[in-house]
Amino acid sequence: MAENNTTRRSFLKAGLTGAAATIATGAYAEGDPAITEIQPWMQELGEGVDARPYGTPSPFEKHVKRRNVEWLTADPVSSVNFTPLHELDGIITPNGLCFERHHAGIAEVDPAVHRLMINGLVEKELVFTMQDLMRFPRENRVYFLECAANTGMEWRGAQLNGCQFTHGMIHNVMYTGVPLRYILEAAGVKPNGKWILPEGADASGMTRSIPIEKALDDCMVAFKMNGEALRPEQGYPVRLVVPGWEGNMWVKWLRRIEVGDQPWHHREETSKYTDLFKDGRARRFTWEMDAKSVITNPSPQAPITHGKGHTVITGVAWSGRGTIPRVDVTIDGGKNWQKARISGPSFDKSMHRFYFEFDWDGRELLLQSRAHDSTGYVQPTKNELRKVRGENSIYHNNSIQTWYVNEKGVAENVEIS
Amino acid sequence: MAENNTTRRSFLKAGLTGAAATIATGAYAEGDPAITEIQPWMQELGEGVDARPYGTPSPFEKHVKRRNVEWLTADPVSSVNFTPLHELDGIITPNGLCFERHHAGIAEVDPAVHRLMINGLVEKELVFTMQDLMRFPRENRVYFLECAANTGMEWRGAQLNGCQFTHGMIHNVMYTGVPLRYILEAAGVKPNGKWILPEGADASGMTRSIPIEKALDDCMVAFKMNGEALRPEQGYPVRLVVPGWEGNMWVKWLRRIEVGDQPWHHREETSKYTDLFKDGRARRFTWEMDAKSVITNPSPQAPITHGKGHTVITGVAWSGRGTIPRVDVTIDGGKNWQKARISGPSFDKSMHRFYFEFDWDGRELLLQSRAHDSTGYVQPTKNELRKVRGENSIYHNNSIQTWYVNEKGVAENVEIS
Repeated sequence: MAENNTTRRSFLKAGLTGAAATIATGAYAEGDPAITEIQPWMQELGEGVDARPYGTPSPFEKHVKRRNVEWLTADPVSSVNFTPLHELDGIITPNGLCFERHHAGIAEVDPAVHRLMINGLVEKELVFTMQDLMRFPRENRVYFLECAANTGMEWRGAQLNGCQFTHGMIHNVMYTGVPLRYILEAAGVKPNGKWILPEGADASGMTRSIPIEKALDDCMVAFKMNGEALRPEQGYPVRLVVPGWEGNMWVKWLRRIEVGDQPWHHREETSKYTDLFKDGRARRFTWEMDAKSVITNPSPQAPITHGKGHTVITGVAWSGRGTIPRVDVTIDGGKNWQKARISGPSFDKSMHRFYFEFDWDGRELLLQSRAHDSTGYVQPTKNELRKVRGENSIYHNNSIQTWYVNEKGVAENVEIS
Repeated sequence: MAENNTTRRSFLKAGLTGAAATIATGAYAEGDPAITEIQPWMQELGEGVDARPYGTPSPFEKHVKRRNVEWLTADPVSSVNFTPLHELDGIITPNGLCFERHHAGIAEVDPAVHRLMINGLVEKELVFTMQDLMRFPRENRVYFLECAANTGMEWRGAQLNGCQFTHGMIHNVMYTGVPLRYILEAAGVKPNGKWILPEGADASGMTRSIPIEKALDDCMVAFKMNGEALRPEQGYPVRLVVPGWEGNMWVKWLRRIEVGDQPWHHREETSKYTDLFKDGRARRFTWEMDAKSVITNPSPQAPITHGKGHTVITGVAWSGRGTIPRVDVTIDGGKNWQKARISGPSFDKSMHRFYFEFDWDGRELLLQSRAHDSTGYVQPTKNELRKVRGENSIYHNNSIQTWYVNEKGVAENVEIS
C-alpha cells in the first residue's frame, strides 16, 4: 500500500480547519429545504430484497456510462467506447463501465460448447473445455488494460474535450485465471517454439504474435473479472491477459493458442498497431504501455462547481513496466511541480489513484500530472514525444495532458508550448 | 500479496503432468460437435459498442444472482438476500451481487438534497452536502462487510443447503471515502464525547452506538464502492464503513452522526444484535467479526461434475481483527489438515481467497476449512463454540462448516460430532 503520509499529515496540520470552515459555511444556508423538510425516502418503505436479483446503479447515476463517438469509425461493430474516468474513484473499474473495443461486435459465446485448443510446436496438442481449465491452479491479480490507441487523437493537438474521450480506453480489474505457463507446460512447448498466436472466437478471428518469454512469464487465461464471469464484451467465457502490454493482444473469446518458431506478421501487427515515424518508417512490436497519468477531476466533463477554497484534484496513473511510486501535479502549467498523494493498493502493472489537495484562490489553472514508474522512467511532455516520434502516429501517446480551468471552474482540453 | 510459492511449485513438480493428461483425455472426445462445427458466433457480427452504455452479464450467467428465502422473514422490505459465493472467485464482490439487508426497504435518495449532519458534543455543529464531503481527503480501502446473523441458522445444526445461504451475508469491496476522523475533527469533538450515533435516512432510521476510539481509528464515510457510486441498496449516496465490525453498524443512507457521552441503548443493540447465552443472559456490544472461512466450491449448489482426478477446492476466509496468513483444509472431516494456498491481495479486514488442489480418488469426502488470523486466533468447531455460547444465539456463528461430498460429487450440508 503506497500512502504518502507526509503529505496527508501536513495537509491536516495546515489546511483542514480552514477547509472545514468553508464547507460548513456553505452548507448552513438558512431555510434550505434539504434541511428543514423531511424527505420522502424517510417516510416510505422502499424496494425489498426480492426486487433486484442482480443490482443496478441508482437512477440518479444515469449519466455515468460508457460513451462512443459516432464519427470515429465506420460502424459500431468495429469501434470503441470509453470508460467514464471522470465519474470513477479508487482503482477498480466496475465491470459495466469497462471500455469496449471490438473488431466484429460482441461474440455471444455458449461456454458449454466453447473450447480452447493448444496446437503447433507442442509435444501434445490439447483441447480444453471450460471445466478442464478450472482444474488448473488459479491466481488472482489486478491489471490495467489500455488500448494502444488511447489518447491517439491528441498527437496533433488538443481535440477531445473530456478525459473519458482522451484517456478512457483503459480499465483496471481483478482477474481470476490460470497462468498460461501451466497450460503451455501441460502441452509441452518444443525447443523451437518461440512465439504464440492466440486467436479469438469472434467473427474477426483476432490474432496477435506474442514471444514465448512473455507467455511463460505473467500471462493468464482468465475467466473472471472483479469476482464474476467475464462480461461478453470482455471475452466471455475466457480471455488472454497480457499484463502491461497493449490491449489488442489480450485476445477475447480465446479459442486457440498456436505455438510457432517466428511471428505471424498478421494484419493487426503490420497494417495496424504499428507506429509510423516522421520519415515514413514504422516501428513494430511496440507492446509495452509506457508510464502515463491523467487528472480526472477537475476535467472538461467535471468542472469545479464549489467556487474557490479547498479543492481536491484527483487522477490515475499506470505503467506497463511496474508500479507508480510517484506522481507530480502542477497547477501552473509546469512552472512548479508538487508531489501528489497516492492512496490505495499499489500493484504491478495496475492503475494507481492519486490526490492533490490545495486552496484554490479562484484564478485560472493549467493542470497537469506527471507519472514516475518503478523503473525510473518519467512521463514526457507532448513536445518531447513528438520530437522523437513525429505526428504520424496513432498509437502509444503517453504524454502529459493539460486542462485549462477558468475562474468559474470550467475546464477545457488545451495544449501549451 | 500472499502467495504460497512452495505449494505451487510442489504441485507443478508432482502433479501437473498427471492432471493435464486427465484433462486432455476428457476433451478429445471423437466427433464432439464443439470441435468439429464452426460456431454461430464465429460467423456473425455481434452487438456494437453503442448497444450497452452500462454493461450486463452474459445471458448464460442468469443463474448467478442474489437469492432470498421467503419463509425467513415476514416481509421482503425488512429482510435479507444472499451473495452467490459459490459462483464467485477472487476477493472482489461485484456490486450487483453484494447481499442486501434492509430494515425498511431501499431508500431512493436524491444526492442533491441529501445532507450529513454532525451534532451533539461537538464544538461546532456541521451540515455537509455531498459536494462538501468531496472536499476532504479521500482514501481507498478494501473491506469485508458481514452481517452478524451470517450462518446464524446453523447454530442448531446443518439447515441450509448451500454456502450462498449459510455464508452469503458477506461481501468484499473497495471503498472510496473520507476517514470519519477528518469530519469529526472538523466539528471538534468535546472532551466528554465518547460515543457516536450514526443515523440512516431510510424509513427505519437505523441507529447504532459506536465508541469514539473506533470512529477516530479506521471508520470511513464512503461514497464509492468498486470505483463507482454506492449502489442504492448499499446506502447511496453515502454510508458508514466500520471495518471488521458487524454489518448493521455500517449505517446506510447516512444522514446524521451525533456525538454523546454514553451509548444510546437503541433497539438494534438491545432487543436485536445481542448474543443470548444458555443461562438467559445476553452479551452486548459484540462488534468484531471473528475469523471465519468457508469452502465455496465444491458445495451443495456447486457439485463436482468432472468425476475423479485432479480437483480444485476453493473458498474464502476473513477476520475482523486483521489479515488471514493461513487457511487449513481437510478432506476427511478433520482427521488430517493440510495448508491451503492463498492467492491474491491480503488486506487487513478483507476477504482472502484460498485454493487446495488434490487428486480425488472418487471416494466420499468430508470437507472443512479452518482460518487462522494474524492475531493467532483459530476458527473453532461448531461444538467448541456451542460449549461456550449454547444454542440460543442467532449472531456471531464463525464455526467450521462441513460439506459431505458423495461418490458422484454431490455435496450436502452436514454436521459431524
